[in-house]
Amino acid sequence: MSINISKSAPTHPDIVWTRLFSGVDRNGVELNVQIRRALVYAIQTGTLTAGARLPSSRRLAALLNVARNTVTGAYQTLVDEGFLVATERQGIYVAPSLQEHPSDRHRDEAGSLRWQSGFAIRPSLQRQIDKPRDWLAFPYPFVFGQFDPSLFPTNNWREAVRVTSSVKEIYGWAGDQVDDDDPDLVEQLRVQVLPSRGIFADPDEIIVTLGSQQALSMLVQLMVGRDTIVGVEDPGYADLRNMVDLASSGRQNLNMDGDGVIVDETFGRCDIAFLTVSHHCPTTAAMPLSRRQTLLERAEADNVLIVEDDYEGGLSTDPQQDVPSLKSLDRTGRVVYVGSFSKALAPGLRIGYIVAPPSVIRELRVLRRLLLRHPPINNQRILATFIALGHYRQHMDRMSIVLAKRAQHMTTMLGEHLSDCRWQRSPGAKNFWVEAPPGVDCVTLAAAAREKGVLIEPGAAFFADASAGRRFFRLGFTAIAEKRIGPGLALLSEAISDCRS
Amino acid sequence: MSINISKSAPTHPDIVWTRLFSGVDRNGVELNVQIRRALVYAIQTGTLTAGARLPSSRRLAALLNVARNTVTGAYQTLVDEGFLVATERQGIYVAPSLQEHPSDRHRDEAGSLRWQSGFAIRPSLQRQIDKPRDWLAFPYPFVFGQFDPSLFPTNNWREAVRVTSSVKEIYGWAGDQVDDDDPDLVEQLRVQVLPSRGIFADPDEIIVTLGSQQALSMLVQLMVGRDTIVGVEDPGYADLRNMVDLASSGRQNLNMDGDGVIVDETFGRCDIAFLTVSHHCPTTAAMPLSRRQTLLERAEADNVLIVEDDYEGGLSTDPQQDVPSLKSLDRTGRVVYVGSFSKALAPGLRIGYIVAPPSVIRELRVLRRLLLRHPPINNQRILATFIALGHYRQHMDRMSIVLAKRAQHMTTMLGEHLSDCRWQRSPGAKNFWVEAPPGVDCVTLAAAAREKGVLIEPGAAFFADASAGRRFFRLGFTAIAEKRIGPGLALLSEAISDCRS
Repeated sequence: MSINISKSAPTHPDIVWTRLFSGVDRNGVELNVQIRRALVYAIQTGTLTAGARLPSSRRLAALLNVARNTVTGAYQTLVDEGFLVATERQGIYVAPSLQEHPSDRHRDEAGSLRWQSGFAIRPSLQRQIDKPRDWLAFPYPFVFGQFDPSLFPTNNWREAVRVTSSVKEIYGWAGDQVDDDDPDLVEQLRVQVLPSRGIFADPDEIIVTLGSQQALSMLVQLMVGRDTIVGVEDPGYADLRNMVDLASSGRQNLNMDGDGVIVDETFGRCDIAFLTVSHHCPTTAAMPLSRRQTLLERAEADNVLIVEDDYEGGLSTDPQQDVPSLKSLDRTGRVVYVGSFSKALAPGLRIGYIVAPPSVIRELRVLRRLLLRHPPINNQRILATFIALGHYRQHMDRMSIVLAKRAQHMTTMLGEHLSDCRWQRSPGAKNFWVEAPPGVDCVTLAAAAREKGVLIEPGAAFFADASAGRRFFRLGFTAIAEKRIGPGLALLSEAISDCRS
Repeated sequence: MSINISKSAPTHPDIVWTRLFSGVDRNGVELNVQIRRALVYAIQTGTLTAGARLPSSRRLAALLNVARNTVTGAYQTLVDEGFLVATERQGIYVAPSLQEHPSDRHRDEAGSLRWQSGFAIRPSLQRQIDKPRDWLAFPYPFVFGQFDPSLFPTNNWREAVRVTSSVKEIYGWAGDQVDDDDPDLVEQLRVQVLPSRGIFADPDEIIVTLGSQQALSMLVQLMVGRDTIVGVEDPGYADLRNMVDLASSGRQNLNMDGDGVIVDETFGRCDIAFLTVSHHCPTTAAMPLSRRQTLLERAEADNVLIVEDDYEGGLSTDPQQDVPSLKSLDRTGRVVYVGSFSKALAPGLRIGYIVAPPSVIRELRVLRRLLLRHPPINNQRILATFIALGHYRQHMDRMSIVLAKRAQHMTTMLGEHLSDCRWQRSPGAKNFWVEAPPGVDCVTLAAAAREKGVLIEPGAAFFADASAGRRFFRLGFTAIAEKRIGPGLALLSEAISDCRS
């Protein structure tokens, strides 16, 4: 903004004020708040300087087409807070000397280079899953792991937020918990969340994390040294492969078939293996019960520790028919369990958890304290309240039904439009895993589809050898509106034809 | 609880319900919510089994001494959510088969041992600052870094929470931001927070972290390899020393005097140094401007990178008279800046940030994505709104005044009760650093004081050589009520006498 209003122009033209408040959305919430934000910003950035006279509340109300007492209220609050001063009969002015003035700084590229030469690790050089930030701008976003506004339990969540904003609750969460979690959330996990996965844990066997991502990264930090042999699925979760490579030179790619990890020599050689047995990432394959039992027996015989990443647990329509989690089958304390609310509720919240033997949890608490103390307690408390009120259970039931219905629609549309591809999805999974027809390179395909407004995730990033994954792509279906699925897949089919010719 | 209510006892004695709802606080908030929580918990834990009949709303209302429609409302919500069923004219029952039944599990110690033998690191074996979890139970808690309820801007915070709970806002924060932050918070940091420390940064020079703790731990992970020479203050922040020791065998303890780090050969030898120049942790020493300039010149000459941990920035009563931050004096991009809202607002929120050259921020974003994706966006948004509305500035002004006043009272009381000790505190610091009289071991003293209900932090944990710190202790004064300061110090004085004799 280049507007500058000074004392010498006490009656500025209306256009100045109209521009200053151009961000105010009359149909948005809390006009009082919007007006105050705009004024504070203008004062802090120097657009409004000390002594500048504001329009009368009547005039501003007319300009913005809002009630006059909305403006009066906003002015009064800012006077109380010292941003504005009201003088008897003369009007409202910006208070003296509140601004900070940015110096004329130059950006120093030498500084950048200096730090770069000292980097001990270079995470940015690793291959990553490409997560387009601007996916909302695409009409057909078959992205994975994103949030579906229509499924978020807005009113129930707001109830939980409201309840935890009481003075007493604030005093409960605002302090430094050092290395503790909110005991209420731990209790709700024990009583309402974990039992549905067949897991029964004591409080000292649970630690809360910033999503399953932090659960995995802390377990890698704790358990993986330079020479640790770490089994990772191939294809598998790219971020996990990257974490392991930063910590160890002993990554061991595990062999996979349609039922998940194959229980073989390669698996038996590992010190520790990270597995997604309930929905293999990215194929969604669910390991059958018999394979799970064989896996646990082999782990016992060859002394392999297992981290079970159950990132999509509890989302199928008939949890009773789900294969039991590996953790629930484990009788020897060999399996550590990782869960998350990102897929079930909202990834932006960043809440996950680890269930492990007490000595592991104790060590993780000290590590987490060093790394960041603890996940924000206010969010833990909101989630605990949300679960305690029964909202979580209701939400999961609703989600599962909607998910199954949308997946059914996807299946129909895939049959209609992509009949030359092969695909798979296990119940409760939030994506399909698709194999393109021979000759189609899916990195090229993704770029071509993008031109048509269709976002898909090429599969190469999931493979240790990128070229082995060139025939595959991942189709998420929770961020795209149902009515767009058909047209989107039709366009994708066109892109496939283009790539073949 | 051992109560069990079944269908065969349709008219259970009132005492059963009174016990079931014993946690309901009639004077607490939201009775409807409390009643629902208690019922959902009883159902989930099996205290109330399927088919159990609930008391009529009239009867329960009388038992709990609440309005009847409070009970009716709670029942209706739970009926809507499927926890209860209402049958025409017959009453309200627990819905069929909602419970999960914990199996008879045994805790397997072998599992614990198995994982322990695989630990790659043992953070729990490091010396840490002892942070008593039960400090609220002590009448005289001179603890540091804890939250003072009386200073928290409750109403303004709740306004920000309310504003960010709108449907539109939820859609804005609930998604996976991959490696982004809330742009609104970054903007508020740039415009309202950093300029008060003399820092002017572009958005690509800022990353949000989970408190300064995560800022430090990520910078250690990024910049410190096995052989990196890392300068840490001695005495200094114990957690930082521990992080460095997990990453490198090249820790270099820096020499200190009353003005902070001494600019000498030891400093010049470092690849990177972590410094608390504004308030040295734990002595609170503020480095004078001339020393800061010498430090930067030496850093340039000897090619030392510097991380400035400004954990208590902006809390003195006269920011204009503060010595400028190192970052604001740096002309060569050699200083990376770490800030935090833990001391300014509430540690439980876990929000801090790093200001660094763009290439460092880029690498940190990828690292943070691997470690945990990003700090929860809802909290970023609430804080951004809080700042945007001018509440942050007002809060800091108020805090600074209260802090200065309480520090003044501390000084008076120290003079009265601990005249045989020496102490220091720089303006804006939230603790005093105290040297006990000769012959007093402060680890012993802390234990003796604790017996009298007085909590102090022995200084030994801050020293690389614990025995060098035995004469010192840290006195926080933000979690203790003002009127308790005098009596607390009187008791501490008694404890000192006891330790001498």
